[in-house]
Amino acid sequence: MERTTVSYDKLYGYMANMLEKGMKYPRASAEITSKVLVEADARGHASHGVARIKMYYEEVEGGKNHPEAAAEVVHETPVSLVVQGNSAPGFPTSKFAVEKTIEKAEANGTCMTAVRSSCHFGMAGYWAEQMADRGLIGWAFTNTLRAGIPTFGRERLLGTNPICVAIPIGRKPHFMLDMATTTVALGKIEVAARRSGTMPIGWAVDENGKDTTDAVEVAEINRSGRSRYGGQLYLGGATEALGGHKGYGLGMLVELLTAGLSLGAPTYDTYVERCDICHYFQATRLDLFGEAKQIQAHVASIIDRIKNSPTAQGQERIYIHGEKEFERREKALKEGIWLDPATWLRLDDYADRFGLEHLVP
Amino acid sequence: MERTTVSYDKLYGYMANMLEKGMKYPRASAEITSKVLVEADARGHASHGVARIKMYYEEVEGGKNHPEAAAEVVHETPVSLVVQGNSAPGFPTSKFAVEKTIEKAEANGTCMTAVRSSCHFGMAGYWAEQMADRGLIGWAFTNTLRAGIPTFGRERLLGTNPICVAIPIGRKPHFMLDMATTTVALGKIEVAARRSGTMPIGWAVDENGKDTTDAVEVAEINRSGRSRYGGQLYLGGATEALGGHKGYGLGMLVELLTAGLSLGAPTYDTYVERCDICHYFQATRLDLFGEAKQIQAHVASIIDRIKNSPTAQGQERIYIHGEKEFERREKALKEGIWLDPATWLRLDDYADRFGLEHLVP
Repeated sequence: MERTTVSYDKLYGYMANMLEKGMKYPRASAEITSKVLVEADARGHASHGVARIKMYYEEVEGGKNHPEAAAEVVHETPVSLVVQGNSAPGFPTSKFAVEKTIEKAEANGTCMTAVRSSCHFGMAGYWAEQMADRGLIGWAFTNTLRAGIPTFGRERLLGTNPICVAIPIGRKPHFMLDMATTTVALGKIEVAARRSGTMPIGWAVDENGKDTTDAVEVAEINRSGRSRYGGQLYLGGATEALGGHKGYGLGMLVELLTAGLSLGAPTYDTYVERCDICHYFQATRLDLFGEAKQIQAHVASIIDRIKNSPTAQGQERIYIHGEKEFERREKALKEGIWLDPATWLRLDDYADRFGLEHLVP
Repeated sequence: MERTTVSYDKLYGYMANMLEKGMKYPRASAEITSKVLVEADARGHASHGVARIKMYYEEVEGGKNHPEAAAEVVHETPVSLVVQGNSAPGFPTSKFAVEKTIEKAEANGTCMTAVRSSCHFGMAGYWAEQMADRGLIGWAFTNTLRAGIPTFGRERLLGTNPICVAIPIGRKPHFMLDMATTTVALGKIEVAARRSGTMPIGWAVDENGKDTTDAVEVAEINRSGRSRYGGQLYLGGATEALGGHKGYGLGMLVELLTAGLSLGAPTYDTYVERCDICHYFQATRLDLFGEAKQIQAHVASIIDRIKNSPTAQGQERIYIHGEKEFERREKALKEGIWLDPATWLRLDDYADRFGLEHLVP
């Protein structure tokens, strides 16, 4: 029988168990990790979903991610925190950091939190959403692994360095911008490599820093790490004509707010001994600026005006950031989460490795 | 005798006098306005320089900008401010808002300030730099006039909505990202219209929301306002393939932080009765995250690593954001500020109108 979809709760329980039994995550760490992965699959972001078990397993096996470790606060003011992740998984560390950030923002109006020595925290949107769910403006940035090339450069030094900001508007979905600062996510180049072998100009450059459409070559370099040259471009592409220097600037900004403020490892020093990933969170109360409900209604009215404006010829709808993911999640809660065949096989593979049962929908 | 360059001090004094005598700006307002305009010309951003006298004059004449008005604080917490600009020029209003933001950040760690009912504040970088000069991370966002099209839309509803963040690194220049969230500034489309008449795909769409290379048409629509359809695209262009939805998301984010939080006018309602422009400033002390000097040195080391990495074939240098402007400014301070012939003529035109002497270098 071919497996296609699985219920949210079943997938969540299965993954939490796999992380706990197979990878020795403490129960609470296994739960939050499973939660964020399943949320990504429910929103249609398979690139950040349960298939990532492979990456986390390899990190743990390689001694870069220490499931038994725990994060701690190493610096604190009424409106800020610095969290040392101690190489614990990025999920419990981010949960710890975001909960403390929310607590301080609720008490003092705002809180900014820099996190160092963490690991991959999954989809940035999950963390910003926790803050927005509490009525706060939520910011979540992270550096990642070497992927991106500075404008006019050729060495992969920065990450895909996402920017995520969630603004609560009194109804769901929140306004939620969650974007890699590179043109596309690495996963898209891998898909292009598998399908046609080519990708559009503007996604990546080769080892000489020249524009390339060869997705196979770029995906291979990125995966194998055989060369430190060649990799992804930032939003706007390789040239200043279409604003590539702006995307690169946004990637830099994320790097400086995460690794810079936390005194942590920049992307080019990640995944050496440890994961050494850095994050930055910010939560801000709306009533810093007046009556929160009135502000939410005003923000919602701006969103509605944009959303209901005339579409371009041939287009049916103008999207607001966060809507697509919200709608896919609603559907997945009703109809089950769809996993692609490769993901089903990967889960089986790890179940076998850990001596666990296969997932049955 | 052909006029080409003029000294910083002479241009500054001349413009301050023109604003005071010709447009009845109070002396202090004339000085800060002149200062920011001259700073833009010194940095090679003629689009935000003294040639803008025309725009400000027309605003004042049209009753949209009230030089005699003054901004006031209408809401305040230990870490935030809301400023009502009362349609005073954007420069004294931003000076007032940024000075208060700095004061509160120095006292309480951080301050976020939303400003409504302001006018155009010139180059965003000037304001973020004031904060960075005091050792603070400085953020400056603003909405603008109708220019940009949401992805898949065709109505100009949002502005070029710049994002500017300055991070002090213990030496000049600061890291300073200052970018319109549209692919290019409107001025670039006007230059393309004058020169070749065409522009690259990805800068703008026509009245039907379709890609266009016709710079003349787009510049004309924007200038004349004869149609509310057609206009500039956001970073990443028209399609999701190159990330146009990300640039549009950044433009929206700026709109919601400026007009949204301040309860002010969204871009699509600006320049009706008044300018009604909104800004957002944030200043944050580095020592919220540890020893400020150590953080600055760490951030500078990341910048140096990127800057000194190998360049792409055919490229000579990797730039860090803020360097080009800083170097041009240093040169202009030594050799004078170069103004193009059209700007010299424009200054003469307004001098004649106001009964003032022409500027002599």
